[in-house]
This record gives sequence, C-alpha cells and structure tokens, in this order.
Amino acid sequence: MKIPKRKFFLAAVVLLMMQLAWSQDSILYVDAATLLMTGKAKTTDSIYQRIDTIDRKGMPPAVIGLAKQSAGIAVLFETNSTAIRAKWSLPKEVYMHNMTPIAHSGLDLYCLKDGKWQFVGVARTGKGIHQDQLIVRNMDSTMKQFMLYLPLYNGVGSLQIGVQRNAIIQPPAHPAVNKAKRIVVYGSSVVQGASASRPGMAYPAILQRRTGYDVINLGFSGSAKMEPALAAYLATVQADCYILDCIPNPSPQQIKERSYPFIKYLREHQPDIPIIIVETVFRQNGYWDQQVGQTVKDQNNEIRKTYERLLKEGYKNIYYLETDKLIGNDHEATVDGIHLTDLGFTRIADALLPVIKKALKRK
Amino acid sequence: MKIPKRKFFLAAVVLLMMQLAWSQDSILYVDAATLLMTGKAKTTDSIYQRIDTIDRKGMPPAVIGLAKQSAGIAVLFETNSTAIRAKWSLPKEVYMHNMTPIAHSGLDLYCLKDGKWQFVGVARTGKGIHQDQLIVRNMDSTMKQFMLYLPLYNGVGSLQIGVQRNAIIQPPAHPAVNKAKRIVVYGSSVVQGASASRPGMAYPAILQRRTGYDVINLGFSGSAKMEPALAAYLATVQADCYILDCIPNPSPQQIKERSYPFIKYLREHQPDIPIIIVETVFRQNGYWDQQVGQTVKDQNNEIRKTYERLLKEGYKNIYYLETDKLIGNDHEATVDGIHLTDLGFTRIADALLPVIKKALKRK
Repeated sequence: MKIPKRKFFLAAVVLLMMQLAWSQDSILYVDAATLLMTGKAKTTDSIYQRIDTIDRKGMPPAVIGLAKQSAGIAVLFETNSTAIRAKWSLPKEVYMHNMTPIAHSGLDLYCLKDGKWQFVGVARTGKGIHQDQLIVRNMDSTMKQFMLYLPLYNGVGSLQIGVQRNAIIQPPAHPAVNKAKRIVVYGSSVVQGASASRPGMAYPAILQRRTGYDVINLGFSGSAKMEPALAAYLATVQADCYILDCIPNPSPQQIKERSYPFIKYLREHQPDIPIIIVETVFRQNGYWDQQVGQTVKDQNNEIRKTYERLLKEGYKNIYYLETDKLIGNDHEATVDGIHLTDLGFTRIADALLPVIKKALKRK
Repeated sequence: MKIPKRKFFLAAVVLLMMQLAWSQDSILYVDAATLLMTGKAKTTDSIYQRIDTIDRKGMPPAVIGLAKQSAGIAVLFETNSTAIRAKWSLPKEVYMHNMTPIAHSGLDLYCLKDGKWQFVGVARTGKGIHQDQLIVRNMDSTMKQFMLYLPLYNGVGSLQIGVQRNAIIQPPAHPAVNKAKRIVVYGSSVVQGASASRPGMAYPAILQRRTGYDVINLGFSGSAKMEPALAAYLATVQADCYILDCIPNPSPQQIKERSYPFIKYLREHQPDIPIIIVETVFRQNGYWDQQVGQTVKDQNNEIRKTYERLLKEGYKNIYYLETDKLIGNDHEATVDGIHLTDLGFTRIADALLPVIKKALKRK
C-alpha cells in the first residue's frame, strides 16, 4: 500500500508533537518539601539543612557552614509513576579530589522491595548549580515507596521530584523508616560521608537501611572537635543511641581536655541513652608516615583513657569500639588513607551493627 | 641563659634557609621512564599509552582514543627516600560524575611489605593539567620497593618521581610483579576501572597484587565490542590467560554476530591459552527499568549460547563466569547501577581469582 505523502507528513507531525508533549508536559514536578523528610535531628527553618539557625549559636563557624550541607537527609514518598526525575539547585559548584560529583552534589534513590530498601539509581550531576536529571524510567506502575538521599558535601536550595502527570505522588502512608527509634551519629568527614561513591553509601545511611531506624548524620568534615556547644546541642537531640565518632579531628591534647567533659555533659543530660565511642579509623598512610601514625595512636590513647576514667567513675551504658575492629586489615578500605570508600563504609557498618543492637537491647 | 638578639636572629635566618633549601632543592626528580613499567601489553612508542600506534590500525576510533589512557600501567621502583613526590602532566582536564579526580587523573602508591603490596597514599589532583603533589613523607629510610599506578581515565604526558636528593631511586633489583606470568583482561569501562576510588582499586590491579602476575588492562570504556581488529590484536599479546569481560557494551545482536568468531579467532591463534568469559554485571537499575533489565538478560543469553556452541564444537580450556557470581546480591556494589565501586571490585576479584587459579593450573 502506498501512503500519500501528505498523510505521511501529517502522521510524522502528530508523532513529533506527541513526543514533545511527553518530554515537556508529561512530567509533573512536586516540591519535595511537601513530602516526608527523614534523617533530620530537628525541624529547621531551611528544610534541607541539618541544624537550625537558633541551635547554631555558639558553634564554631566551620560547623555552622557544614550544618548547611544536606548529608544524611532523605525524602520519602510513594508513587506509581513509571519514571522519576529530579530538579535541584545547589548553593555552589563543588570540586573534591576524593569524591565523585554524584556523592558530593547528586541524589541517590532507593525503593522498598519485600520490606528491604534496594538501590534504584542516581541523579548524576553536571557542572553548574542547576541540575535536572532522569533517575529511572520504564518501571512497572505499581505503587512503591521510595527514599531519595540528598547530597553529602553540598547543600540543596530547592528540590522538585518529577513523576508522570497521571501518576500519584504523596508522602508514604506507612513510612519504612521507623522514626520511633533514632540513632544520632556525631563525627568527622567519615560520618559526613567522605568518600562514599553516592549519598546512600555513607555509613549512617547504611545503618539506617539496615536497622530501619531514623539515623541522624551529624558529621562535620574536619570539624568534629567536641566543643561544649556541640555537647549542649547533642543533648537536646532526641536519641535512642549516640555514636561519637569524633576522634579523627581533634588533636591528642584536645581529646585529653575535651572528651571527658563532653561525654560527662551528654551523660548527665541524657542519663538513659547509650553512648558508643568509636576510636579513629587508623589512617592508612600512618603505617608509613611515622608522624601521622604516632598522632593516630595518641588520639586513640587519649580517648581510651577518657573511656576508662568514665568506667572507673561508675558511668554506665557506654560502649567502646577499637580501631582494629573498624575497616578490616587489608589496608584497602580508603580512597586516600583516611576517607572510607563504600568498601570501608560497609565494613564499619558491619562492625557497628552488633554494638548498636546490644546497646539498644540493654536500654 | 639569655641568647643575644643578634645570634637569635642569625639562627632564625639559618633555619629559614634550611627550610627553603629543603622545600626547593632537596627533592630530586627522576623521569619515571627510566624506571620499570608494568601492566603493559607490549612496548609502545609513547610509554604511558596502552596500545602502540602500529597496532591501532583498523581499530575503532573510540578504542584508539581510550588506548591513550594509562589504565593499568604502573611504575616500579625502589628507594630509601623518606618522602616521595610526583609531578605529572595530563593531556586534558577531565570531569566524570561517577569517578573521583584521584581515580581518573591521580596516582596511587603501594609499597612491598613482608612480600605483600600495601597501600601507601595517593597523589591527589587539583584542577588543571599540571600536577605536583606530595604522596608520602616521614617514612623510615630503609630501602623499599614501590609501585605507582597511573590515571585510569586520563593519559599521562610526562611523569617525574621526586625523592630526597641524597636518596637512591632505581628500578627494583627484584621486581615483585612476576612478568613471566601474564593475565590479559579485555573489556568495558568496568575493566578500565569505572568507578574505582583510586587507580589501584580497578579489578585488574587488585588481581595483579593478589596473584603477583603482570595483569594487562585492556578495558575500553563503552567500546569493548569485539571487532575483528581487537581479536587480531589480542591474539598477538603474550598471555597465560585471557579474561573476556566485554559483554556490557555490545548489543545482544552484536554479541550474537561477533562473539563466536571473536573467541574462535583467539582460540585458533592461541590454542593453549585459557580463556575466561565473564557475563555482564547485572545493571542494578535493570531490576527497575524493565528495558534495561531485558537487554542485560539478552546480552547474557547470547554470550551463553556462544559458550555452549564452542563447548559443543569441542573447544577446550574455556571458562565461564555467570553474572550472579560477580558482585554479591545486596545491590550495593555500584556507584550508578553499572560501574563498580571498590566494594564491587573487591567482590568481582574474589569471584575471578579461583577461576584464574584453576585455568592457570590446568594450563
């Protein structure tokens, strides 16, 4: 059969218009702020920040800056859309020699499948501060619960999640993150997520998926130095367990001076909450650089002394995790000697989980 | 004792001069080309490239471009210097959303300790194409053997290794990479090293350290499509074992058309060399994107059919590794669904090692 040229042309135009309609109009964007946030210590004035303006008073400037980054925050929603997109704006363009752009500025999507969170895909990042990316398409159209992790080492100005126009998107009726139980992790760059390959592989996020609890990432890169203002803040954050992984940043002298009053304050203001103290990961270059190696040993010696003093003084419900239990012994778990890769984060999560379970059980 | 002001001033000047002398003059740079290269298929006109100009004839332009990247090449040397620096030039500035700058453009240093390669440190990368970085300092001054991996997704124009002026640096007297045994890996971006956190964590490099053999990285990102020119080239590369991990890139139709003649050519020209065929890693987004999932299944079905056909026709010494054996079943081994992180690379190396041992034993 010969198709008349005019009809063929018309059909082509219609097809092109349908395609344009799909690409431009068939996606409906909803503001993520209307969905459900998880991984937040408290409500904040700027929803994608970790510490509220009012709580930042007295904190060091570096911590205040890092508290504006979105590490550990995730958006929960359910949708039956077969495709999911995201548009988000970043306050600044970031370059990190030891992290992927996906990890420092991208998004990481999981879906609940048979009661477990399973990786779906990432929103990669191009250069610039305005991002607009497809995360997944061609899914079946059953209703599913999703969790979207935000950037680890950047902030989020605005975030919109795109689904098909005819699909439902809403806060989940039965959120799979149990907000009744909360683990609060205070620490350094390792806690904040350097150097996970994507936001969901920072170890607080791994712990969150494995326990089902709400896990709060209070990792402040290079700046977890146990100042009194941080103890005061931590004591006001509702928790069922505190993890203190803050030994990599302070000097041995600072640990000597600060760790005892810091933990004592926390214990006195939260007498029933278990505290897990984590020694610093042994810097792998410290096996070669003798100065670095000595500093790491001194840091761990000082926190060990504080722990033993607390025990001697009768403090209870304090747990302690030694450096040689954290990331294996093949020396392969870091990108640069100190910052953990997904291999390191998987190992430290494996090490922490039984301690957390024990702590929560006793509580 | 009171120190006279003038003496104090003089002492300060001398100290400052000593410091300047250390920082500016105390490092001696040697051209890495004068040391020992490993991980190279053959000698090439440009030493930091993977395939020589003369061998590139007839290869697809994409493969020719990628062959200029230095994935898998490492420099072996021994030195008693307490510090090691590097200056290197890159042909271009690279941005990759799913890789760290250290991995695509940086250097990764290992040292031999008690007969095993142990991670020492990385040469991070700043922006730009001229890099000059300290890798390690404060080591003891015993003579040690080092291996420095080159960038995975960039080239190297020039490379100089810096040691203390009074130290010895030379090709190792007893290189710890056994060049008498060679494993040649042909494959996609996964083989080239996306998305290892640093050059030494690409799986051919992990295999190299674990076996002690020379392992040749012929990974060509997105471009391992089994063209006849590649079979012809591979057959000329001296090997004790071929690993064909080239299923992620070609379409199911291309695998159907190309895999049989490709492997047949290799077998006929190298009748005694074991061949290990690896199915494609199951793209993790393929559990959600039904089109992607179907394509991956079709790719693996096609290579499976070729393998069974070869067996039926009496071809021997061919090994086969299924997709479900490669990277675990927790869906956490990739940065973006397809490219392996250090967690994924550790798992795929674990899966490949026993097959390699079996293949080499039988040979």
